Amino acid sequence: MDSKSSFILKDCVDYDRSKGSVIILDQTKLPSQELYIELSSIDQIVEAIVKLRVRGAPALGVVASLGISLVISKKDFSNVEQLIVCFNDYYQKLIESRPTAVNLKNGLDRVKEALNSSVERGLDLNGIKCELINEAIQIKHEDIEANIKMAEHGLSLIKHNYRILTYCNAGHLAVSRFGTALSPIYLAHKKGYNIHVFSCETRPLLQGSRLTMYELNRAGVSCSLICDNMVSYMMQSGEIDCVIVGCDRVAKNGDVANKIGTSMVAILAKYYSIPFYVIGPSSTLDHF
Amino acid sequence: MDSKSSFILKDCVDYDRSKGSVIILDQTKLPSQELYIELSSIDQIVEAIVKLRVRGAPALGVVASLGISLVISKKDFSNVEQLIVCFNDYYQKLIESRPTAVNLKNGLDRVKEALNSSVERGLDLNGIKCELINEAIQIKHEDIEANIKMAEHGLSLIKHNYRILTYCNAGHLAVSRFGTALSPIYLAHKKGYNIHVFSCETRPLLQGSRLTMYELNRAGVSCSLICDNMVSYMMQSGEIDCVIVGCDRVAKNGDVANKIGTSMVAILAKYYSIPFYVIGPSSTLDHF
Repeated sequence: MDSKSSFILKDCVDYDRSKGSVIILDQTKLPSQELYIELSSIDQIVEAIVKLRVRGAPALGVVASLGISLVISKKDFSNVEQLIVCFNDYYQKLIESRPTAVNLKNGLDRVKEALNSSVERGLDLNGIKCELINEAIQIKHEDIEANIKMAEHGLSLIKHNYRILTYCNAGHLAVSRFGTALSPIYLAHKKGYNIHVFSCETRPLLQGSRLTMYELNRAGVSCSLICDNMVSYMMQSGEIDCVIVGCDRVAKNGDVANKIGTSMVAILAKYYSIPFYVIGPSSTLDHF
Repeated sequence: MDSKSSFILKDCVDYDRSKGSVIILDQTKLPSQELYIELSSIDQIVEAIVKLRVRGAPALGVVASLGISLVISKKDFSNVEQLIVCFNDYYQKLIESRPTAVNLKNGLDRVKEALNSSVERGLDLNGIKCELINEAIQIKHEDIEANIKMAEHGLSLIKHNYRILTYCNAGHLAVSRFGTALSPIYLAHKKGYNIHVFSCETRPLLQGSRLTMYELNRAGVSCSLICDNMVSYMMQSGEIDCVIVGCDRVAKNGDVANKIGTSMVAILAKYYSIPFYVIGPSSTLDHF
């Protein structure tokens, strides 16, 4: 996979620099409707995060950093101090919109550093705005590059004809492009590994049945939906070769936070001696 | 609890001897509608079993034995041989309606023995019919008595203020009266133990959210519904003191067959060192 690799879906988090807006695929409408919406105010972006129109730890980092930069770029300020006050207000609103996703804070902090640095360097309002947007776009590009690396590293975990269980959604819809846990699956599929993916429903919001099944089908990957309570039976029956999941956050001691139910899958995998892999970018790790 | 203990719901499997029919609470309509339906042909009874209008291992034993006896009691036969041919035909249809519930076969075999014995004793057609019905009614009474004993034995597993997790439905709706796994819960509630019950949804047919929550609420037992994938989190958080479930069948070696997902709950309970109890009547045990 390379960064220009054609993918079946458009990027789920994109932007229109001239309009100063973020464009997202509204995930609450999936799988019945592929609706891209334009967000051009902080309130709209916060609402989209709170309502899970956009979700997935890496995608939240990108949407928040692009959002704050682009909205600020379209506002008129009398002086730099006014811009800083506005930035801090937006920063706070976005931080509070989804406290569990560490990437959201990491993304915003990087844009904040770009702000501080450009103020120190004495840039004018336009210069500062430009620096903020560039940093946010850089975050998106780094995320895409990270996903490509995860695909390549993760591929070593997958053998031909593997039947892989995944949980929740850690694919194209959760990131800028390709996915974290699903990126090696897409790469294996592209390379003709003849894999099959089982996705749990992931009650109660059904990220597995609504989102993962949607994007796997869309990409032509052979897949089946199972109820969350079927995991033990499937493992016991020898139907699962390995488990690959994403993560919301990884603590310094290695503890992983992820969607409720992930510990269930992990404990069952341990019980049945089935390899259990967590794939995430360094932006999801604490103090990396 | 005694056999006349008033219960909030009518028996879910009952009969009208004069009409030759079985009366069941249609569980596919719960919790929105409490609909009792009358079944007066073998095809209706088979349909009710196949469509899960009546379910629960002990209840199936009762409905099958009452059904075959009552339907036969209303039919005209020229001779005993004709009755036997008809019985064997009905027996086969009922056996095939739900192969996993051992109680169904056990109940039918008891009625078949009553048939053989009354033929041997030279009873006439009316005498035989009467023996069949008496045996089926006896099965129902024994089931009620067994549930009362399970309530009393099971009570020793429950302490005041216990928070108990249950899975699927092993209550009043699964038996003739009171329940298997839920019977000690009802007794503890009656004795003022201040317990709280967590019920899993039990995907995909939702026996937990539709049936267990319905009957616990109906009986005034404090209860909460959780998603199947919340079990690990709830146990890890110290919210569960013990698990009590029913069983479809217990093999001679002690292996338990029960609703898909039960092994998940059992493995998680083992991992978190939480007591896991299976309660069932001897009719559910192989070669007891």
